Amino acid sequence: MGNSDYAFPSKGDCAHRVAIPPPQPFYKSLKRSLKETFFPDDPLRQFKNQPPSRKFILGLQYFLPILEWAPRYTFQYFKADLIAGITIASLAIPQGISYAQLANLPPILGLYSSFVPPLVYAMMGSSRDLAVGTVAVASLLTASMLGSEVNANDNPTLYLHLAFTATFFAGVLQATLGILRLGFIVDFLSHATIVGFMAGAATVVCLQQLKGILGLERFTHGTDVVSVMRSVFTQTHQSKRRPKFFWISAMAPLTSVILGSLLVYLTHAENHGVQVIGHLKKGLNPPSLTDLAFGSQYVTLAMKTGIVTGVIALAEGIAVGRSFAMFKNYHIDGNKEMIAFGMMNIAGSCTSCYLTTGPFSRSAVNFNAGCKTAVSNIVMATAVMITLLFLTPLFHYTPLVVLSSIIIAAMLGLIDYEAALHLWKVDKFDFVVCISAYIGVVFGSVEIGLVIAVALSVLRVLLFVARPRTTVLGNIPNSMVYRSVEHYPVVDSVPGVLILRIDAPIYFANASYLRERISRWIDEEEDKLKSSGEASLQYIILDMGSVANIDTSGIGMLEEVKKIIDRRGLKLVLANPGSEVMKKLDKSKFLDEIGQEWVYLTVAEAVGACNFMLHSCKPAPATDNNV
Amino acid sequence: MGNSDYAFPSKGDCAHRVAIPPPQPFYKSLKRSLKETFFPDDPLRQFKNQPPSRKFILGLQYFLPILEWAPRYTFQYFKADLIAGITIASLAIPQGISYAQLANLPPILGLYSSFVPPLVYAMMGSSRDLAVGTVAVASLLTASMLGSEVNANDNPTLYLHLAFTATFFAGVLQATLGILRLGFIVDFLSHATIVGFMAGAATVVCLQQLKGILGLERFTHGTDVVSVMRSVFTQTHQSKRRPKFFWISAMAPLTSVILGSLLVYLTHAENHGVQVIGHLKKGLNPPSLTDLAFGSQYVTLAMKTGIVTGVIALAEGIAVGRSFAMFKNYHIDGNKEMIAFGMMNIAGSCTSCYLTTGPFSRSAVNFNAGCKTAVSNIVMATAVMITLLFLTPLFHYTPLVVLSSIIIAAMLGLIDYEAALHLWKVDKFDFVVCISAYIGVVFGSVEIGLVIAVALSVLRVLLFVARPRTTVLGNIPNSMVYRSVEHYPVVDSVPGVLILRIDAPIYFANASYLRERISRWIDEEEDKLKSSGEASLQYIILDMGSVANIDTSGIGMLEEVKKIIDRRGLKLVLANPGSEVMKKLDKSKFLDEIGQEWVYLTVAEAVGACNFMLHSCKPAPATDNNV
Repeated sequence: MGNSDYAFPSKGDCAHRVAIPPPQPFYKSLKRSLKETFFPDDPLRQFKNQPPSRKFILGLQYFLPILEWAPRYTFQYFKADLIAGITIASLAIPQGISYAQLANLPPILGLYSSFVPPLVYAMMGSSRDLAVGTVAVASLLTASMLGSEVNANDNPTLYLHLAFTATFFAGVLQATLGILRLGFIVDFLSHATIVGFMAGAATVVCLQQLKGILGLERFTHGTDVVSVMRSVFTQTHQSKRRPKFFWISAMAPLTSVILGSLLVYLTHAENHGVQVIGHLKKGLNPPSLTDLAFGSQYVTLAMKTGIVTGVIALAEGIAVGRSFAMFKNYHIDGNKEMIAFGMMNIAGSCTSCYLTTGPFSRSAVNFNAGCKTAVSNIVMATAVMITLLFLTPLFHYTPLVVLSSIIIAAMLGLIDYEAALHLWKVDKFDFVVCISAYIGVVFGSVEIGLVIAVALSVLRVLLFVARPRTTVLGNIPNSMVYRSVEHYPVVDSVPGVLILRIDAPIYFANASYLRERISRWIDEEEDKLKSSGEASLQYIILDMGSVANIDTSGIGMLEEVKKIIDRRGLKLVLANPGSEVMKKLDKSKFLDEIGQEWVYLTVAEAVGACNFMLHSCKPAPATDNNV
Repeated sequence: MGNSDYAFPSKGDCAHRVAIPPPQPFYKSLKRSLKETFFPDDPLRQFKNQPPSRKFILGLQYFLPILEWAPRYTFQYFKADLIAGITIASLAIPQGISYAQLANLPPILGLYSSFVPPLVYAMMGSSRDLAVGTVAVASLLTASMLGSEVNANDNPTLYLHLAFTATFFAGVLQATLGILRLGFIVDFLSHATIVGFMAGAATVVCLQQLKGILGLERFTHGTDVVSVMRSVFTQTHQSKRRPKFFWISAMAPLTSVILGSLLVYLTHAENHGVQVIGHLKKGLNPPSLTDLAFGSQYVTLAMKTGIVTGVIALAEGIAVGRSFAMFKNYHIDGNKEMIAFGMMNIAGSCTSCYLTTGPFSRSAVNFNAGCKTAVSNIVMATAVMITLLFLTPLFHYTPLVVLSSIIIAAMLGLIDYEAALHLWKVDKFDFVVCISAYIGVVFGSVEIGLVIAVALSVLRVLLFVARPRTTVLGNIPNSMVYRSVEHYPVVDSVPGVLILRIDAPIYFANASYLRERISRWIDEEEDKLKSSGEASLQYIILDMGSVANIDTSGIGMLEEVKKIIDRRGLKLVLANPGSEVMKKLDKSKFLDEIGQEWVYLTVAEAVGACNFMLHSCKPAPATDNNV
């Protein structure tokens, strides 16, 4: 503490100098910023200083994580994975059939999609808890986007082929984003967007399905089934919040399917208007590579559908993977996951599957059932394989209304009104984004909701930069700390000095605004001082501590502000510019213009220098400005 | 200085508290942020505390600034404005005809457009130096956009009507942006974008015109005219940088027109293949309100053209007005200027004018000729009126090649390679934006160049937020100041403590990135300490001083980071969060989670508290985390 006189001199001549970073070769700074942009997690760290053979093995393990963990796999793990795998299979089979129906695709596709993709993911994925499968929202999107131009009932083959093609494009997009390390595109779907979007999609799906269910009420037994389902699923829904009861949630769909099918079979309700699934083809996934409709006139439609559903599926899958990884304290590489999702969907599109990802509900069941590794996905795929080979006839009598109920039950869990309330409480703008997504999806279309929410989120970022906060600082009594006058009403202002902090980078988007706003601060301060008869303004200190970067428009703005300030007979002083800002101010000669002696390391030092000049020099330094 | 012990306690218990701002009613904070977004210059300040009659007069003066300055107008001013007005008229007449030709419109439109719009601007505009007229880039854009669907030669009437309609839409857009105070949209055309865009447009125009000129070389006298023009304009171009010779620059076009016309008249070159303007209709602007083609099938084309040209014209006009206002130290309200531009173009579209704005070249001449107020525009309009009424026959023999030369001369001044070099030197990204705009315009189209440049600029802003800088801080010896280790190599790190500064708001767009990046900093620090055998890491201090805002995704990220840090047996400490961040951390209960005693006003106080705990408490506080 004894050195504080040196640290915060009251004279301008022994203050700390703000360093100008030494010039760096262009390629070096380019390399560095590219690395920070695309490799923030430094995934190649482990390859450093390794012999070539080890590098090869590490490289293989990087792309096929199974090679890394399989050698350490134990029987203990297998027991856990077996139970978890069977549990999620019991969920996957009815859900798969239901979601395929939601996508207007043949029910059997839901089973196919729970067979090949989980196997691919088990080899390439790095999450230990993700359970792969189709999801409701992507299914709904497929139906609404493809359905807008091709009717699934009139032209089922074309529709089916377009769905495969869309899946292919989704996979290519996902893998490409991962390889190019553009994972941050997914980050633009903010939490608020997803909450609103999911709730909107769930509402739409529920309304659609409800129509079907209510239409059935005229028939015998129909209502009973509905009420049975309802009571079952009310429990299911509640149990989501109490992991101990997750077995109910996990087993309910299969139980409902079995009970419903038995009921129909015994009462022959299928002859009285209750629609059933009907015949399901036995056998494993037929190849569908030749079905990809690249030559079709609808290929752009398939591409568009693939892009939208691919991004949505990625967002869900990555978020789910990350959540569970955080819970179990292991690391997930987002870009690597994208490659895994992409390969799994490309493989899926060639084996009669449609879009798959890591759904939250199924992964939560997997997690609660105690899965240890991706082997639970292999177990699930095996169970589905057995079903495909031998058990498909059992689903003949499954009533469609059961499937609708399964969908509705899953959907109700997606309407997270508590999250929306939390958004309202904490951040009003996020709430607006959320509600816009919801309203857009419900009253417009899924795409409109998505576009509005993403546009609003991006607008917020742009507005943050376009309208940065400028705050007036004052001195916290008995300290060298300067803080916002508004946040800390106890602070004292420094006579003759106006201290302004700029809270954003100075870019083209805010240069004009900042010029206006700084002028206005000076005007207001001078008016205030004049009316109160205090000492007139002499110095303007700009605290640049939060200005992380500046571009040429921003430097132009500073030059203009300096001219305005000079012309009023005041003096501009800079405090605490960062290295990037100093570099550019130096290169653009602005430092020479302002004089490097007027750039201080801290606001306290700048104030000290101003006070020194104010009290010791008779000819006010502000008048000898170099205009 | 004696109080510094109080200011920077070495014990955690007497440090400053970070205030949680008192809750504000929602409508109040909404009102405030709306005001900061849309009324940063507080234009209604002068209306405060005024009697209603005065308010009415101020209101009138707000919309018609002429009412404000006309009463103070003197004969001295008029003399200056008269000279300036005649000077710019001598430039306006040949330039107007040339640019109309560039836009594929009848040459007389160039004169019409220099008559009505300047009168409107003189009443509504707030710049004293702007000289109103048509501009080359907007003319070129009109030709390229309208010409893409309607051929001006095959269908001149439709083309003309569409040009009026586009001007009308441009005016409506400009006025609307001004009234809604959305002027910041224009700010998204950064300086770099405009430099590249203008140079690209100039290159395209020069190449177009040169083709015409070279095609004439086979004819008698053609080459002579060209060489004469060239020598004249080489001078003109150079003189731009020496204001004393501005008379040459100002008078050269008219002199060339007179000389060229005389030459053609005397040698009868028009009969030997030299194209001349031909007959120009005498008389003032005919009304064109009924020509506006709202019912045409091309109305969307006109609207698109109007939007693009309107924004470009606004960007130039506002930038020019602001530059000269800054030079003469008066204030320009960007949004008010937009309303003036808009009204002037709406009026213009009804009186046979096409798009006008405040071109740089003409305004510079106006400024150099010593204009005092917008009366110079009225003088120019009067001179053009006299020309329209009596002098149009004199232009019959003006060779088109002279007009091409005038255009080329004006265009060469727009290729500002020095500005591009400056961009390269100061900011590489700005240079890339500039060159992209140039290449886009030259090799693609004017629209493509513009879209690429704006997209890159916006991408830069988004990338700034998506990939914020995180820096490790250290203690500047013998002070309480903490600065970047990289920028100041002299700083000392604090044993057992890692201090990280985040240089951007924490938003959805960077939440995942920051989580990864902070984890990696901790990993790297632990590796480093382990290999050097130093004291192990105990505390992570996050300096939030530059975090101006946070959204719900950002708070989620902090919660996750806290979990990660807790699980490693470390302790998270926050330093210097701003008022907005504190408010949200409080509302989301994160403050309770972390414990408010772990939030410090400065990094120095946070370090002091950590050191106190490290040295006095045996059971390391990091282990009693509340997971």
